[in-house]
Amino acid sequence: MKARVHIMLKTGVLDPQGEAVRHALGSLGFDGVDGVRQGKVIELDLTESDPEAAKAEVTKMCEALLANTVIERYDVELV
Amino acid sequence: MKARVHIMLKTGVLDPQGEAVRHALGSLGFDGVDGVRQGKVIELDLTESDPEAAKAEVTKMCEALLANTVIERYDVELV
Repeated sequence: MKARVHIMLKTGVLDPQGEAVRHALGSLGFDGVDGVRQGKVIELDLTESDPEAAKAEVTKMCEALLANTVIERYDVELV
Repeated sequence: MKARVHIMLKTGVLDPQGEAVRHALGSLGFDGVDGVRQGKVIELDLTESDPEAAKAEVTKMCEALLANTVIERYDVELV
């Protein structure tokens, strides 16, 4: 079973990477961009085949390692 | 209109970040992980309101700046 985790900075946390991308897009002539936020996506191949157990396991991984829950939010999606 | 872009290394391109995450998960006792790939996700706030035009614009941004199409693949999703 495959899982995909999105990890983004929480709203209100400064995102200098996103700001740099927004600025660079503006320099290239892409004017219709109001805001950019950049985050991480992590794709996991799991041996677990039960969807509920897999989701619970990945949530534990996020809390333990993948996300810094002080400043980041994550969401887990099975694919 | 909001768009989300996923940028992942192409299959076959070495992903040391993903490997490091897999190794760290193993050290923490998460044994059911066969593979990990890590990529970027970029969320864009666009002024464009037509979905087709927005998607075309974001695809141009990916080709020009966001993705390195030699080693990365991207997909654009409107949210």
